[in-house]
Amino acid sequence: MTTTAGLIADGVLIDGEAAIATTVDPSTGATVGAFRGATRSQLDRIAGLAADAEDRFRHTGAAVRAALLEDIALRMEDAGDEIVDLAVAESGLSRARMVSELGRTTGQLRMFAAALEEGGIGHRRADSTGGPTPVPLLLRTLAVGPVAVFAASNFPLAFSTAGGDVASALAAGCPVIVKAHSAHVATSVRVARAIADAVRASGLPGGVFGHLIGDREIGTGLVAHPAIRAVGFTGSRGGGQALARVAAERPHPIPVFAEMSSVNPVFVLPGSATEAVADGFVASLTLGGGQFCTNPGLVFVPAGAAGDAFVARSARLVEDAAAQTMLTGAIARAYSSSVEDACRRGAQLVASGIAAEPRNAPAAHLLEIDLAAFQEDARWMDEMFGAAGLVVRYPGAAQLVAAAEALDGQLTATIWHEGADDEATLRALLPVLERKAGRLISNGWPTGVAVSPAMVHGGPSPATTDARFTAVGTLAADRFLRPVAYQGFPESLLEGVLGADTNS
Amino acid sequence: MTTTAGLIADGVLIDGEAAIATTVDPSTGATVGAFRGATRSQLDRIAGLAADAEDRFRHTGAAVRAALLEDIALRMEDAGDEIVDLAVAESGLSRARMVSELGRTTGQLRMFAAALEEGGIGHRRADSTGGPTPVPLLLRTLAVGPVAVFAASNFPLAFSTAGGDVASALAAGCPVIVKAHSAHVATSVRVARAIADAVRASGLPGGVFGHLIGDREIGTGLVAHPAIRAVGFTGSRGGGQALARVAAERPHPIPVFAEMSSVNPVFVLPGSATEAVADGFVASLTLGGGQFCTNPGLVFVPAGAAGDAFVARSARLVEDAAAQTMLTGAIARAYSSSVEDACRRGAQLVASGIAAEPRNAPAAHLLEIDLAAFQEDARWMDEMFGAAGLVVRYPGAAQLVAAAEALDGQLTATIWHEGADDEATLRALLPVLERKAGRLISNGWPTGVAVSPAMVHGGPSPATTDARFTAVGTLAADRFLRPVAYQGFPESLLEGVLGADTNS
Repeated sequence: MTTTAGLIADGVLIDGEAAIATTVDPSTGATVGAFRGATRSQLDRIAGLAADAEDRFRHTGAAVRAALLEDIALRMEDAGDEIVDLAVAESGLSRARMVSELGRTTGQLRMFAAALEEGGIGHRRADSTGGPTPVPLLLRTLAVGPVAVFAASNFPLAFSTAGGDVASALAAGCPVIVKAHSAHVATSVRVARAIADAVRASGLPGGVFGHLIGDREIGTGLVAHPAIRAVGFTGSRGGGQALARVAAERPHPIPVFAEMSSVNPVFVLPGSATEAVADGFVASLTLGGGQFCTNPGLVFVPAGAAGDAFVARSARLVEDAAAQTMLTGAIARAYSSSVEDACRRGAQLVASGIAAEPRNAPAAHLLEIDLAAFQEDARWMDEMFGAAGLVVRYPGAAQLVAAAEALDGQLTATIWHEGADDEATLRALLPVLERKAGRLISNGWPTGVAVSPAMVHGGPSPATTDARFTAVGTLAADRFLRPVAYQGFPESLLEGVLGADTNS
Repeated sequence: MTTTAGLIADGVLIDGEAAIATTVDPSTGATVGAFRGATRSQLDRIAGLAADAEDRFRHTGAAVRAALLEDIALRMEDAGDEIVDLAVAESGLSRARMVSELGRTTGQLRMFAAALEEGGIGHRRADSTGGPTPVPLLLRTLAVGPVAVFAASNFPLAFSTAGGDVASALAAGCPVIVKAHSAHVATSVRVARAIADAVRASGLPGGVFGHLIGDREIGTGLVAHPAIRAVGFTGSRGGGQALARVAAERPHPIPVFAEMSSVNPVFVLPGSATEAVADGFVASLTLGGGQFCTNPGLVFVPAGAAGDAFVARSARLVEDAAAQTMLTGAIARAYSSSVEDACRRGAQLVASGIAAEPRNAPAAHLLEIDLAAFQEDARWMDEMFGAAGLVVRYPGAAQLVAAAEALDGQLTATIWHEGADDEATLRALLPVLERKAGRLISNGWPTGVAVSPAMVHGGPSPATTDARFTAVGTLAADRFLRPVAYQGFPESLLEGVLGADTNS
């Protein structure tokens, strides 16, 4: 057991003084770490440090910020074994997954470093006011200020302490304060130490990066704090909406980028309702215990013979699926009760996976509900977080398009199609799905989100709180930038006054 | 008196059935127009038409949208005399101002048309998912869907029925529903007719443009309507915040771009505290009866002899300022009571303009409060909408920077400076003001917002509800676009399926 009294030293020295909390290995129940949370006055202090660092970091050149991100990646690699050990212990996820997620995390940091070096973060436009006495007008994007990031349970590395929200906020020139996820605090503290070391080595103020352990009240206090100018969150719909409400009720509201819930509908068109596609579906459904934001939890399959083989094959594969330890006991219990609830509401249990020996490892499930029932009750669109898929059989293209129209906002929508008839249906579906999702996938699977400049990981409510932005890819930095116009400043004055170029 | 029973015909035919309301000439009190407002079921119908038009308009090519905007501009010019007559009668503003504002409005429509033709609205990025089996990834921005626009009282043309919000939303590919401002409904109906004619001539669905007359309840109902996906608003802080609350409380919240209140602080540094600069200040302060969002309502002037000449000259000019009819009786009364309130709270009345003969034409005022009192009470930052300026004298640069730090969010901040000493102060002020305002002005005045691609008309709360966007300039279209990624779609399928290129 790791005992960390307080949070991290170095630059953002804060000794926790609140009650001790522990993290456990969900597969054994063994305690992994024990931590004291931050008090309100410690929150104030860490927020004050971020505010103090704000002006300097906003005007730190792109090259310095790129070097900081690169150094964070290197320090995480140096501490890789330790970080992976802690993440495996606290998450119940496999070592292979955690090694891969560490690579994704450092790769993400380096993607933003490269984008900074190439001038791909933010933008500027030069122009003039026109009219009889034109003066120069320069628009450029500036960091919004300190960003609060709430770490995700399901990506202890890639969407947590040095994850996409943090990397994109630092790339934008915003100080960041991470609130550790209560399920993996030891991992978070270790990663935070690597970041704090990198900040110290860079010569930037310690307030560029802060880290907090705390309960819900501390989290709410962070969002309400006047120093905070934007919020990044990955988690439940209830959690994201609660933070959005706190942010909206501030005297000066701030944006919240909450990535919340999505059932990631898959539309299997008749030409594609094959066993091979069923193999891909169940692999995506059960990947990582189904604990991905992009898990395909809803699949539309042709009625009758055209879809029977797909469903039969999917059922057989789910029956063979091994149970996987879920991230926390609470998540495992919520998963099981969401499946039980669906059955109580009339879903048919088509198949269940291998019953579990280890703790917190419920079986995978395949359920089915008929189209009419699906369309009558919006609760069928509620996410069952875990490896549970809901099959809906559709008689024809018209009914499928109508079902798509009834969907809530989603991170992704996937269409499997083959041949001219399917393409006609795809043409009818696409305009509807463009309104519903942030990413549309043709003949692929939504899990395995590429970290790339053209990625969109976002979508209309309730998938996220703001469909105009993405949480993955270089565009994620736009969440933390705002345009400012400089009117009538001669170039010489701008150079002298503004110092190093902030973005682009 | 013009009587329009109902709203507009053509495409979005709606006959008003609610109680009749009238508009008046604020300088005479004479009735200009009488109108029946929309009922709830008429709102539903018009919103339904917008939703019906959404998919088609989103996929209408940039050239068609550019031609629509150009045609709206032409039709407004054709009806120019009639539109200007109505706007003058309903606003109390001068004919010269209205002619100029008509030109600004058509110029704005053409700026978006040109930007569409040049690929300057929205963007796309092509990429691949990478990994062992890479597939193509295309990110492009798509229209968010129907936009509700609340017309502004102070720009009956340029921020109203065919104003910047409408032009930018149409450029983005979003259907628009305008809620007419109750002070200039006849103007709004005439402009709406021109737009509806242009939409009909384009062959696009009538639902691309809707127009509503109604009370506060209809406005609230519009923001809450499920078909509406974003809101543009220019008006009071209370009004904007109320709409933002309605939008946040929807089952699926939507963004509200409200441009609300700003005192547009001016920092006169010692080297610039000249009579010539005072001339510019009072001209900007009294322009259009002080009824501009960017009116310089707060001016920091050096204490002692360095600033005395500036204040004395400003006072003399304000004393000579002619009273101007304000937009409405309610606005004139609010102006007078905000000045009385400031005096009651301890402001010294430095100068008052010529007492008014016409109705609703209160005098200009110059007030002063000392720095300590200013910093003690946040109400000194409340906008006095109209030609009232508040002078604050400062002893030195350090105190001036501290005062800037205490400011709320603003649309603009202006620095007048001359020489090396002033430049040192400017260097200290600028990082603070970058956090406070959307546009920084060197040796100029905030009124007269250039409509240009590098303009930012926006700023931190309470100036607007979202500092990451601008309401003026081509970037204004970004408010109504969201990114969508297409993964694994072969180019041939995208061409065929997506039809005309939407943005860029």
